[in-house]
Amino acid sequence: MPAILGQSIFDGGLGFPAMVVHRDALEHNVATMAAFVRDHGMELAPHAKTHMSPEISALQLGAGAWGLTVATTRQAQVVRGFGVGRILVANQIVDPAGLAWAAGELAGDPGFEFLSFADSAAGVDLLARHAGARPFRVLVELGHEGGRAGCRTLSGLLEVVAHVQRTPGVELAGIAGYEGGLKSSEEVRKYLHLLQEAVEHVRVKNPILSVGGSQWFDVIGRELVATQARILLRSGAYVTHDDGYYRERTPFNRIEGELRPALEVWAHVLSTPEPGLAIVGMGKRDAPYDEGLPIPRRGGVTIMKMQDQHTVVRADGLKPGDLLAFGISHPCTAFDKWRVLPLVDRDYRVVDTISTNF
Amino acid sequence: MPAILGQSIFDGGLGFPAMVVHRDALEHNVATMAAFVRDHGMELAPHAKTHMSPEISALQLGAGAWGLTVATTRQAQVVRGFGVGRILVANQIVDPAGLAWAAGELAGDPGFEFLSFADSAAGVDLLARHAGARPFRVLVELGHEGGRAGCRTLSGLLEVVAHVQRTPGVELAGIAGYEGGLKSSEEVRKYLHLLQEAVEHVRVKNPILSVGGSQWFDVIGRELVATQARILLRSGAYVTHDDGYYRERTPFNRIEGELRPALEVWAHVLSTPEPGLAIVGMGKRDAPYDEGLPIPRRGGVTIMKMQDQHTVVRADGLKPGDLLAFGISHPCTAFDKWRVLPLVDRDYRVVDTISTNF
Repeated sequence: MPAILGQSIFDGGLGFPAMVVHRDALEHNVATMAAFVRDHGMELAPHAKTHMSPEISALQLGAGAWGLTVATTRQAQVVRGFGVGRILVANQIVDPAGLAWAAGELAGDPGFEFLSFADSAAGVDLLARHAGARPFRVLVELGHEGGRAGCRTLSGLLEVVAHVQRTPGVELAGIAGYEGGLKSSEEVRKYLHLLQEAVEHVRVKNPILSVGGSQWFDVIGRELVATQARILLRSGAYVTHDDGYYRERTPFNRIEGELRPALEVWAHVLSTPEPGLAIVGMGKRDAPYDEGLPIPRRGGVTIMKMQDQHTVVRADGLKPGDLLAFGISHPCTAFDKWRVLPLVDRDYRVVDTISTNF
Repeated sequence: MPAILGQSIFDGGLGFPAMVVHRDALEHNVATMAAFVRDHGMELAPHAKTHMSPEISALQLGAGAWGLTVATTRQAQVVRGFGVGRILVANQIVDPAGLAWAAGELAGDPGFEFLSFADSAAGVDLLARHAGARPFRVLVELGHEGGRAGCRTLSGLLEVVAHVQRTPGVELAGIAGYEGGLKSSEEVRKYLHLLQEAVEHVRVKNPILSVGGSQWFDVIGRELVATQARILLRSGAYVTHDDGYYRERTPFNRIEGELRPALEVWAHVLSTPEPGLAIVGMGKRDAPYDEGLPIPRRGGVTIMKMQDQHTVVRADGLKPGDLLAFGISHPCTAFDKWRVLPLVDRDYRVVDTISTNF
C-alpha cells in the first residue's frame, strides 16, 4: 500500500476490491461534530469501535475530543496502545483479564483516566474485586424497556449508586445511558429527562452524564442544555457517516449542517455471464450488508445478492474489467473488514493510509 | 496470546469474547476430507478463503492437498506468502495489479503453478494482455442459470475454449464449475454431467475438472468416478465445519463418516437488566450472523438479536460474569472476524495459535 502513495487508485498499483476513505469528508465530519459539541456545551468521547484506527483517533483527539469510547477491554487495550489517555468502556466490565489490565494501567500511570459502566451490585462487586491502588470510576447506567443493558428504573439505579458509594475500590463518576435504540424524538426526550433526574442524585463534584449514538444528538443538545452535569457524547458512526443507515437517520436531516459519506468501495466486474447480469468482485468480506446493502454509485445497477466474495447485480452495458463504485451502509461493519484503507483526495490520489486494529 | 500457551482459556489470562479452534475436530476434519478425496480418486485444493490461515493451510497441505484455492489475487498473494506452490484462483481475474503480480511470480519461479477461471473472450484477452514469459493457465468455467459466473451453455463454453487455444499468453488447463448453489442432488447430477461432457472436448494432456463447495462432494465422488480428467475439489468450509448451515448440509448426512464443529465462541454475560434477559458480550464483530445466528451450547438460552458488540438473549438463571459458549454457523464469516484464535485441546488448554490474514 505505501508503494501507491501519491498515485491515483486507478493507476494500476492498487488491487481491487478496495475500500477507500475520502479525506475531505472525514475531516469535514470530524470538524462538524467537534463544532456541534462545543456549540452545545458538551464534550465528545467518540466511539472508536467504529473504526479502531490510530489515524482517525488522532484526528478526533486533535479536534478536541475528551478521549475515546470503546466497547470492550480488548478495544481499550488497543486504543491505549495508540497513546490515548482517557478511555470510557461503554459497558459493565466483567472480564477478569480486562479488569486486571485496567487496574495495572491505572496503577502505572497516575494521569490515565478510565471510566466504565455499572448497572448492578454484582457488576460493581466484580469491579471492586479487581481494583488496584486507584479505584475504578463508574457511570451507573440507566437503560430502558426494550433496550440493552442498564437499570430499568430510577429506584433500581439509585440502589446501584448507593452500592458504588459504599464499596471500596469503585468510585462514582456519574450516569450513563444509550438512546440510540429509541424510535422517536419524543421517546428520546422522555428518556433524557429521566437521565437528567438520575444525575441530580449523584452527589459528586462535576458528575458526568454520558449518552451515545449518532442518531439523536440534536435532541440531546437541545434537552440537556441546562444540565449541570458534564455531557459526554459517545457518537461513533458520524466520523465517516454513510450512504444508507445513517444518511437516513442523522440529526442533520433535522438541523442545519451536514455529514458527508467518507467510505466507498471500488470493485471490478468479474463476469457478465448473461445479458443484464454481472458478477462483481466485492462480497461480504469487503462491504457491510447487515443494515442495508452497498449503494451503487452508477445508475441502473441493482444488487440482487451478496455472497462471501461476490455481489450479483442486474445492470446493462457492463463488461469484465469495468470498475464500479459503491457507497456503504453502516460504518461499524465496514472498517472491520479491512486492515489498511487508502485515504484519498478528490482526485482519488492516495494521500495516506488508514489502518485498523480489530 | 502466546502468554497463555499451555494454560486453560478459563485461567484468567485470556480476555473474552474469544473464538477458539478445537484441535481434535480440526485435525479430524482435515484427515476425513483427505481420505474422502483419496478414496474417490480426486485431488483437493481446499478453499483458503474460509480461514486465510497459514497454520490451517499447512495442515491441509501436509495431509496431501494439491495446493490451495483462493477467491482473489489479494488472497493469492497472501497464501503465496505462506509458501504455497500451487494456487487456483476460482474466478476470472480482471484486476491489473493482481495479474501483474501473478505474471511476476510465474516468471520468478519455474515451479510455481497458478490456475484461474475464464468464461469470456474478454476475460481471456485481459489475461493475455498481462501475461509474461509463462502463459496463464486457465480453466474455462461452465455456470448454470441462476448461478454465479460461468458460460451458460456448452456451445458458449466451447467458443471460449477455442479462444483460449488461439490466444498467445494463455493456455488451456481444463474446465471448472461450481455446484454449491444448486438445490438438489438431481440438479447437481445433471450439472456434473454437463461438466463431464465439456471436459471431454478439452484436447490437452491430463485436463483438470475443478468443482467446489462443501455440500455436494458425495455426488461429485459418485458421478465423476469414470471421468478421465483430474478432479480438483475446492471445498473450504469442511475444515472447521459448523453447528448450523453446514451441519444441515454436509454430505456426511447422506454418507458414512462425519465432520466435527471446530469453532466455538465464548463470551461473558455483561448484564441481566430484566428477569430472564441477558446482554452477552459477543456481537457481529465476534461471530457470524449471515447464515444463521450463533447456537447457544447451554439449553434454555434463546438469541433475540445481535448488535455490533452485543447479543441480547432470553434465559433464566444467568448473572453478570457468567461465561456462555456458542457454536457458529458459516465458517467463512467467522474466521474473518479474528486475527488470532487459540487452538485448544479437549480441556480447553491452549496448545497453539491460529492466525488469519484477511
